[in-house]
Amino acid sequence: MLFYENLNKVVEKNKTYLCLGLDTDIGKIPPFLRGEKQALFTFNKEIIDATQDLVCAYKPQIAYYSSQGAEDQLEMTINYIKEKYKDIQVILDSKRGDIDATATQYAKESFVRYQADAVTVNPYMGSDAIRPFLQFREKGVFVLCKTSNKSSQDFQNRIIDGKPLYYWVAEKAVNEWNEYHNLGLVMGATGPQELGEIRALGDEVPFLVPGVGTQGGDLDQVLSQGLNSKNRGLVINSSRAILYAGQGPDFHLKSRLVAESMVQVMRKYFSN
Amino acid sequence: MLFYENLNKVVEKNKTYLCLGLDTDIGKIPPFLRGEKQALFTFNKEIIDATQDLVCAYKPQIAYYSSQGAEDQLEMTINYIKEKYKDIQVILDSKRGDIDATATQYAKESFVRYQADAVTVNPYMGSDAIRPFLQFREKGVFVLCKTSNKSSQDFQNRIIDGKPLYYWVAEKAVNEWNEYHNLGLVMGATGPQELGEIRALGDEVPFLVPGVGTQGGDLDQVLSQGLNSKNRGLVINSSRAILYAGQGPDFHLKSRLVAESMVQVMRKYFSN
Repeated sequence: MLFYENLNKVVEKNKTYLCLGLDTDIGKIPPFLRGEKQALFTFNKEIIDATQDLVCAYKPQIAYYSSQGAEDQLEMTINYIKEKYKDIQVILDSKRGDIDATATQYAKESFVRYQADAVTVNPYMGSDAIRPFLQFREKGVFVLCKTSNKSSQDFQNRIIDGKPLYYWVAEKAVNEWNEYHNLGLVMGATGPQELGEIRALGDEVPFLVPGVGTQGGDLDQVLSQGLNSKNRGLVINSSRAILYAGQGPDFHLKSRLVAESMVQVMRKYFSN
Repeated sequence: MLFYENLNKVVEKNKTYLCLGLDTDIGKIPPFLRGEKQALFTFNKEIIDATQDLVCAYKPQIAYYSSQGAEDQLEMTINYIKEKYKDIQVILDSKRGDIDATATQYAKESFVRYQADAVTVNPYMGSDAIRPFLQFREKGVFVLCKTSNKSSQDFQNRIIDGKPLYYWVAEKAVNEWNEYHNLGLVMGATGPQELGEIRALGDEVPFLVPGVGTQGGDLDQVLSQGLNSKNRGLVINSSRAILYAGQGPDFHLKSRLVAESMVQVMRKYFSN
């Protein structure tokens, strides 16, 4: 419940559903930064300072750090956000999923080591893989439901008893797993009608929506289909379209412009 | 193909299908070791030296290291195996799964940073999440199919067109994804009849079989159902039952005894 409350608080304060994905790729950040010793953190810091009033959450993607042996820069990034902009939620995007003993270790990775406010998890192994995360009652847990990539249809759209697999994941998550009111769903922007179908299961659960921007999801459609009855319940992620908008010394300002254009569309759903 | 060949080579040499899972839990290793600076690595080294002639693979579970900020000890463990016992395969158990750009980063984590010979991956997001790993043609990629935990039935056993979801994962993996002959499947020991069902799809693909030991899978059943026509194609994992067999200064010898009792059953399938 605390995660829902904290998320709503910053959504109201900044009048935005925008989550900025920190998929900070050493091969894509401005060339003049790449030689720096802590290039990922330096880049993130500039981007965060330039966008902090436009977002409700930052979502670092752990693979971009772990592939480089740069866990320390991930820690520094999260600490920076939490110290300087403490209302903003940090969602660690790691999509972990394993048997309960191991899931407990992953939950510690997310919530104790990295001190994230929320995490993404994979449902393929069922409830054993999810519950150890949900036990951290003050934290948020976004379960992959319908993802934004093309091959999500390989299995997520296969029909079981008249409904696609992703529907059954949502159904179980919403109706069976959410006893502490700290669960969310990952619902890709590339299928807005699916957002509406799953929103019909309930008003409470927030959707983390990737796929707006580079992946082609339509922001207006996402808003009209995904918002709940109080015009809340969405955390809309964009990563590459914002992060890599510029490559010069003003890269962070270019990023801000892209973020602003998205937030402008979102602010129609907020009263002044 | 190279992974299949290297795996077969060490299986023949050591006459074993045993894979020892290095789920090295700081709270479960012998108390006298816990205070050491590199306790996880020290424990692993003793266990590895005591079991190296009984296994075909070691499978470190990354969560036990990342939850502690001990990536360095995971690196040291893998380096130790590769330098001292170079035939033995290292399977990094991380069950990653994400969109292609991110999956490429995870593949680098597994194969470039950690230099693992093989990895485990999650199929929920479909082929996008798997192909970047398979592109490392000399490496092995074990796709989760039917896992050994109880709640694997939540989704993996749901019926689609007359067959369970895990069957369709195996079918796609074996028939569509394995163009470089470097794919394997994770097939839990807790359902031996499922091993037989999936083995019928083909002889080539190795199964990584967790769940023997603590989780209750029956070794004889696994062997009779899972081996291919040449009595090969299995990598049978045990973790906790071996790792935590002893808590005194002779812990590694207790571990060896448990491993030996398993390998004795396996050696019936090898000629002298």
